[in-house]
Amino acid sequence: MARDNGDGLAAIAGRIGVLGSVALNIVALAIYLRGRAAAEKQASKKVKKAAAVAPSSGKPPVACDSVINLDHGDPTMFEPFWRGPIGESATLVIPGWQTMSYFSDVGNLCWFLEPSFEREVRRLHRLVGNAAVEGYHVLVGTGSSQLFQAALYALAPPTADTPLSVVSTTPFYSMYPPLTDFLSSGLYRWAGDANTFDGDDYIEVVCSPSNPDGSIREAVLKSKSGKDIHDLAYYWPQYTPITQMLAHDIMLFTVSKCTGHAGTRIGWALVKDKEVAQKMSKFMEQSTIGVCKDAQLRAAKVLGAVTDGYEHQLATAAGGDANLLFHYARRKMAHRWCALRAAVAASGIFSLPNEVAGFCTFTKDTVTSNPAFAWLRCEKQEVEDLESFLRENKIITRSGTKFGADQKVVRISMVDTDEAFGIFVNRLAAIK
Amino acid sequence: MARDNGDGLAAIAGRIGVLGSVALNIVALAIYLRGRAAAEKQASKKVKKAAAVAPSSGKPPVACDSVINLDHGDPTMFEPFWRGPIGESATLVIPGWQTMSYFSDVGNLCWFLEPSFEREVRRLHRLVGNAAVEGYHVLVGTGSSQLFQAALYALAPPTADTPLSVVSTTPFYSMYPPLTDFLSSGLYRWAGDANTFDGDDYIEVVCSPSNPDGSIREAVLKSKSGKDIHDLAYYWPQYTPITQMLAHDIMLFTVSKCTGHAGTRIGWALVKDKEVAQKMSKFMEQSTIGVCKDAQLRAAKVLGAVTDGYEHQLATAAGGDANLLFHYARRKMAHRWCALRAAVAASGIFSLPNEVAGFCTFTKDTVTSNPAFAWLRCEKQEVEDLESFLRENKIITRSGTKFGADQKVVRISMVDTDEAFGIFVNRLAAIK
Repeated sequence: MARDNGDGLAAIAGRIGVLGSVALNIVALAIYLRGRAAAEKQASKKVKKAAAVAPSSGKPPVACDSVINLDHGDPTMFEPFWRGPIGESATLVIPGWQTMSYFSDVGNLCWFLEPSFEREVRRLHRLVGNAAVEGYHVLVGTGSSQLFQAALYALAPPTADTPLSVVSTTPFYSMYPPLTDFLSSGLYRWAGDANTFDGDDYIEVVCSPSNPDGSIREAVLKSKSGKDIHDLAYYWPQYTPITQMLAHDIMLFTVSKCTGHAGTRIGWALVKDKEVAQKMSKFMEQSTIGVCKDAQLRAAKVLGAVTDGYEHQLATAAGGDANLLFHYARRKMAHRWCALRAAVAASGIFSLPNEVAGFCTFTKDTVTSNPAFAWLRCEKQEVEDLESFLRENKIITRSGTKFGADQKVVRISMVDTDEAFGIFVNRLAAIK
Repeated sequence: MARDNGDGLAAIAGRIGVLGSVALNIVALAIYLRGRAAAEKQASKKVKKAAAVAPSSGKPPVACDSVINLDHGDPTMFEPFWRGPIGESATLVIPGWQTMSYFSDVGNLCWFLEPSFEREVRRLHRLVGNAAVEGYHVLVGTGSSQLFQAALYALAPPTADTPLSVVSTTPFYSMYPPLTDFLSSGLYRWAGDANTFDGDDYIEVVCSPSNPDGSIREAVLKSKSGKDIHDLAYYWPQYTPITQMLAHDIMLFTVSKCTGHAGTRIGWALVKDKEVAQKMSKFMEQSTIGVCKDAQLRAAKVLGAVTDGYEHQLATAAGGDANLLFHYARRKMAHRWCALRAAVAASGIFSLPNEVAGFCTFTKDTVTSNPAFAWLRCEKQEVEDLESFLRENKIITRSGTKFGADQKVVRISMVDTDEAFGIFVNRLAAIK
């Protein structure tokens, strides 16, 4: 895969209209870090205020000498947005007597699907234009991990002699192999890289934009009896230009990466075929007797607030992006990628995948992608195991080996808090 | 199993202090049904009020000629309690920016466990005295179904040649076989009735009080290498006298059957061994990347409100049971069992398990059990398939065959709404 050492910075710099050359990278980094210090003070005040009402702190706050854990893609980056004006309208109130029944809608194929959640899912996709919803069944899952397993269960023949092969192009999402194999199911089995798979019967998982490397993917296997699952967790405008309305047979999404509400554990699937949708629903029924209703109501509130923000903006023609989640998050991601490329250039021993640009049909402009993860490679010969090397520098990442790649590359979350990200780029820039 | 045709009614009647003989059964039924009509009017008003704020109706309301579905143990019976004074304090408010991280407590073995939920679980067990919590790890699951699977995963050797046998005494909970086998796992396999199992290596699931028949159970297999899972979903004072503080290796509970909040999908496990607890936690991590935080916060509120209700009552020495969940629910369950036994006596073709009484260490009195399900047998020779027979009478139940028993017995939910239960006993009494 082609990579760059920061050569793509000019393109980003031009995009954000602040910097003009690679020589200014260090200045950009200094500006970023100064901004971060102010943000940290502000955040520290907020954490104190939050402690009074927040029942758990999640992760403890970080300090300059903390170990920075960017192993998980924990999307806490979005929290400041939800503390803003839109967050108010996403507040959920549930009286003690509500949502007691197992059932949400007995007449629905997916009887545990809250009607308001389905409505907001369809409304959001119509707004963004990233996926077709007409003629699709909407299913809800306890995160998209559960829906992934539900899709395997629905697509694998129940009475085959040998388990069906599950494949994905390398580097693939590190959770696909354990999610497929952790129960040693007789129905399906992980079979590795799609590019080297030989056979007609398989399930190919296509993650696009790709976790870990942000690339745009299509299925590489073509057989009449093969089946595809499209994991579109990151196909949202903050991460990548929306170039077309996708209409695959099974498309998976998650609130976690769309709005940042990972703790709510809600994902959804758009499924074309009724029988497949029924089997997927059956999986959720057996595995967890449906999906938490409170979480669905919360997700409906959150998705509704996002769409309302855009509809309100259109109606009032007001400026700024404080009400526009995707615009706010894209600006923030672009800022972070700029800082990361500056740090990579300052260090000199790392490289990143090349930038990809495209026309976004949602924002109506040409933009580069800002992946949720940095797929960072070390170009220094002595460093054989990049994960361990960064760990010595108190940066926790996930080794390329878990994604079917080599030890000289790691995946790094780009969606953590401002504080953690700031300390990370600072440390990275200093590694020689 | 010994059964009765309503002979145990005197005992219940004596307990509730209203009736004195079997001859008065019909009077009891009439009184119950009159009360129900008034309750229906009241409920109908409440449904209208609720519709304005409730995002989904769950199940549609029933009318006199409706098909009554008592297949699931959907604990909507508890809703009126939560509309009362205690419900107010269980209201959950979550601002848009809260609970975004995957993590609840990074330092905990179960990193996705909300500290407030754990606190309220321990507090409630200390109040009721039904299970030991000192020296136990608390784990949270998406309902106790997920924890059941987590326990199988934790107890089965990961590299055995053949799947470990999972057994339970007949009649066993109908979901154990599909929960064990639906993914054709190579780790464990359903092996049926514990009483007929031959071997040293197994997992025995002990459900006590038993779903479906309410009996008190202990493990029947004794081998050094065998493992037990105790499913204590119904070991609460409204269903059975609390006779001892249990202290088994793995004990499963669910908010669903304790407080009636089934839609919240929260269960918990008390686990003695650290390594087993770690493996169970790993299961939830892989299966759904943890458990919804909003749901845990809601469950914490609800459990906290129950304990607060008792502590407040003790402090103020106030009368009535409007603030005392277990007392309220026990009275209601006793009322229903009385009405059911009256209906069974009026019909003359059915029988029920014998009543069991015991001294409850929580309420400090001798009481009979009021199981969450009626295990109803048909004594009429012509009726071979009781489920179909009742279906013809527009009563949906679950056939004994799903519990490893015969076709002449069914399981019927005793925890549905007042309206549904009222229509059901009315219909049952009329079947000759």
